[in-house]
Amino acid sequence: MTRTKPVDSIQRRGLMLVLSSPSGAGKTTISRRLLERDDNIAMSVSVTTRPMRPGEVDGRDYHFIECERYRTMVVEGELLEHAKVFGHFYGTPKAAVEAALAAGSDVLFDIDWQGTQQLANSARKDLVSVFVLPPTAVELERRLRARAQDSDEVIAGRMAKASDEMSHWAEYDYVIVNSDLDASVVRVQAILAAERLKRERQVGLFDFVESLRQTL
Amino acid sequence: MTRTKPVDSIQRRGLMLVLSSPSGAGKTTISRRLLERDDNIAMSVSVTTRPMRPGEVDGRDYHFIECERYRTMVVEGELLEHAKVFGHFYGTPKAAVEAALAAGSDVLFDIDWQGTQQLANSARKDLVSVFVLPPTAVELERRLRARAQDSDEVIAGRMAKASDEMSHWAEYDYVIVNSDLDASVVRVQAILAAERLKRERQVGLFDFVESLRQTL
Repeated sequence: MTRTKPVDSIQRRGLMLVLSSPSGAGKTTISRRLLERDDNIAMSVSVTTRPMRPGEVDGRDYHFIECERYRTMVVEGELLEHAKVFGHFYGTPKAAVEAALAAGSDVLFDIDWQGTQQLANSARKDLVSVFVLPPTAVELERRLRARAQDSDEVIAGRMAKASDEMSHWAEYDYVIVNSDLDASVVRVQAILAAERLKRERQVGLFDFVESLRQTL
Repeated sequence: MTRTKPVDSIQRRGLMLVLSSPSGAGKTTISRRLLERDDNIAMSVSVTTRPMRPGEVDGRDYHFIECERYRTMVVEGELLEHAKVFGHFYGTPKAAVEAALAAGSDVLFDIDWQGTQQLANSARKDLVSVFVLPPTAVELERRLRARAQDSDEVIAGRMAKASDEMSHWAEYDYVIVNSDLDASVVRVQAILAAERLKRERQVGLFDFVESLRQTL
């Protein structure tokens, strides 16, 4: 009787976990806690053409690049998604994400519905998308109004943007209503744990089962 | 400003959780522990034409029915799946499962690949299927040989059946290698927790988000 292939011959392809929500729904806090609790997922580092701000570190917060390099990346298809925000360009470099996934590491994305649609278009099978909703409009509005110095116009614009973002909830795989922050983090962890067990992410299962059957 | 619909207006449609594995891989123990730990999932109670055994309770272990009633259920499409095993008929009554799902309760199935294929054919969207593999063939064989009085022929038949069952692993949504029983139960719990958060199982999300947007 030959020996079964060891269980650790089953490797896992990483996944891309997207969290989207209207700003003020708690997505950023959920992301930070998830990163603290799980060593096998890291935040995707975007490229951007905007100037570095005090305290930011190139390669940690963003890869700061010139406009010309950005244009080349777009043309050469080196970005999984990209967008213009307040006159500056942002994008997700494909090579780094692909290397992480191939090594069995997961990548976290804190992006909006437009970025999510682009990721789904280029990497649907690796994508797991979660939409985070606020529990009430009152709570969301309070958070959007939090910075007291903002004008009514700025706040109105922020609320319109939140409403627009929320209109895309039905494009996501999972939906979490963030009534309780810790419960929401636990829920995202469960989603991550389950998605890691999906058959198609477990590379080497075919060989493992074949060796089991042959040794019976 | 009108009030947002309360979060509890989001109801959930139940799901059908299938655990399959070759006998000896630990599926039955995992099922029992899952039922102990989670109040919102119950084992599906099958109908059967075989005689009741001492200690069995009608309606708990099985619904014991006559052959004629069974034939009627098959003809009328009242069974989600059915099979003949050792000369007796078994089946899953559709009405009870549908009532549980509509009430937001989950139903656990301990069935083989043939039953799973039938369930997938009649209720794919409600189905979440998990295949449990043994960690090694040595371990599986030890369990299949456990009852010392069995003849070599009986054991060989059991091993062939295990091998046949395992050949269907690729038809399942999730695969768990049961190296550690408690870790496997936790994994099934994570799958259940995640699947409950799937957008399409959360009935009433549309109205909830619309009310959020209108109150902004």
